[in-house]
Amino acid sequence: MRTWSFTTGHGTKNDFVLIMDRSGLLNPSDDDIRFLCDRHIGLGADGVLRAIKAGLMPQWDGDPDLWFMDYRNADGSIAEICANGLRVFARWLIDQDLAHGDGIDIATRAGVRHCRLTRDGQISVELGEPRWTKTPTTIELGGVTYRGHHVDVGNPHCVVELDTVEELEHLDLSSPPHGDDFLDGVNVEFIVFTSERNLRMRVHERGVGETWSCGSGVVAACCHAKNRENPPPNPQDITSYHVSVPGGQLSVDFHENQATLTGPAVIIAQGKVTLLDD
Amino acid sequence: MRTWSFTTGHGTKNDFVLIMDRSGLLNPSDDDIRFLCDRHIGLGADGVLRAIKAGLMPQWDGDPDLWFMDYRNADGSIAEICANGLRVFARWLIDQDLAHGDGIDIATRAGVRHCRLTRDGQISVELGEPRWTKTPTTIELGGVTYRGHHVDVGNPHCVVELDTVEELEHLDLSSPPHGDDFLDGVNVEFIVFTSERNLRMRVHERGVGETWSCGSGVVAACCHAKNRENPPPNPQDITSYHVSVPGGQLSVDFHENQATLTGPAVIIAQGKVTLLDD
Repeated sequence: MRTWSFTTGHGTKNDFVLIMDRSGLLNPSDDDIRFLCDRHIGLGADGVLRAIKAGLMPQWDGDPDLWFMDYRNADGSIAEICANGLRVFARWLIDQDLAHGDGIDIATRAGVRHCRLTRDGQISVELGEPRWTKTPTTIELGGVTYRGHHVDVGNPHCVVELDTVEELEHLDLSSPPHGDDFLDGVNVEFIVFTSERNLRMRVHERGVGETWSCGSGVVAACCHAKNRENPPPNPQDITSYHVSVPGGQLSVDFHENQATLTGPAVIIAQGKVTLLDD
Repeated sequence: MRTWSFTTGHGTKNDFVLIMDRSGLLNPSDDDIRFLCDRHIGLGADGVLRAIKAGLMPQWDGDPDLWFMDYRNADGSIAEICANGLRVFARWLIDQDLAHGDGIDIATRAGVRHCRLTRDGQISVELGEPRWTKTPTTIELGGVTYRGHHVDVGNPHCVVELDTVEELEHLDLSSPPHGDDFLDGVNVEFIVFTSERNLRMRVHERGVGETWSCGSGVVAACCHAKNRENPPPNPQDITSYHVSVPGGQLSVDFHENQATLTGPAVIIAQGKVTLLDD
């Protein structure tokens, strides 16, 4: 019988199980991940964030003393990065006295990401420069064809701007949108501007469905806001956006096109969990 | 900031948060219950089982030293009883050395219920005599009218017998069934006999939706099996039934019409949870 220590936390209702595995001895199997994330027989989460010293990850050739965030989706598969996951991971390291809030470098499969505790107690993460594709594309949902723009935030996004909040609220996102330019699937963000720098957003995540929040989707939406065809009079004045998602509020700041995502990151519980026998 | 100790557990994927409150000092509000049961920002469960000494419950006039199971639904509302909840509650008391497996009396709003650890490590609970109504009733689901029987297990059930497993698998239970005899709603069990004493079942729980399992629904289904119009040659020989629900396997035994529900009850995790501030 294996009993592991765990912590759970969430960022705008994107929720995670955090496992400390400093020396890489736990070695969770895909079945272990699926069990931990199961919302009825396990702890329940969107994914697992395993903390291991970076030098123990075979593919890592950077600073071996960094904490590596080994992110696994609820189905056991590996993902390169998870923006809300990074923020919750950073909160946990700070709470455990394993990092200082004024600057934490976290190793991921996509490289090092820099996080920080803000003055009002939120957690921000620097996510690099998203790439916006000027030529519009199309995406189809429920028999309706929408015009959107491809944004690459390390993973593929398609941002669709709608005219009204009512239109956004009435979307049926129970089945996945499709686009000929995205044969491997795509994360689709539907957004409405409620003011020049305030957006509302709903998201359909590739392989998951509609979710409460998607950090990289929020960055993609704000990258679109910055590049849209009918910008406000002085777009260069606008370097920060606020995005309301079903799970809460996030904000994105751009400095020389580099995006920083900021929002709440909350620890829920900690304890011991008994894993299923093999 | 309030931090409470908790345990989580499940019986055939019916999952619960268990809170020890021996002296009745925690006094969880409806908001606390909703937070604990929230599957993204809390621990996630179908309901909360609070353990308190029975003498501290104002309405209790029995043995004050019994453990009282204060059951609350995920929305904060009070329920008299929960059959799978009782089995998980009993498992927890045994694991904590607060009860002996060969017989545990648990106080509930519906009176005392007797639980016991079986020789193969399952937990059984005696649920009294269900009442079956001979005159059939009708229930409507998705434009189709089904013939069913009303069974009272302390709460109202309507059991509908289908002919084939395919029919059961293809039912769309995403919206609630309705019946003129059940204006306050009803728990509806759709069952198929796979042999004389083996049933498959899906259930729509009143006010909840389709669930992985419903202990009282399983008892209702077996009460119907015992009373059905075309019984097997020697119905008096059949005193026990096995029911396969989406969340696992349960069995029901009848002794002089008294039903005992038996199945797995599993502790998942224990730890500390930080509640939301008021």
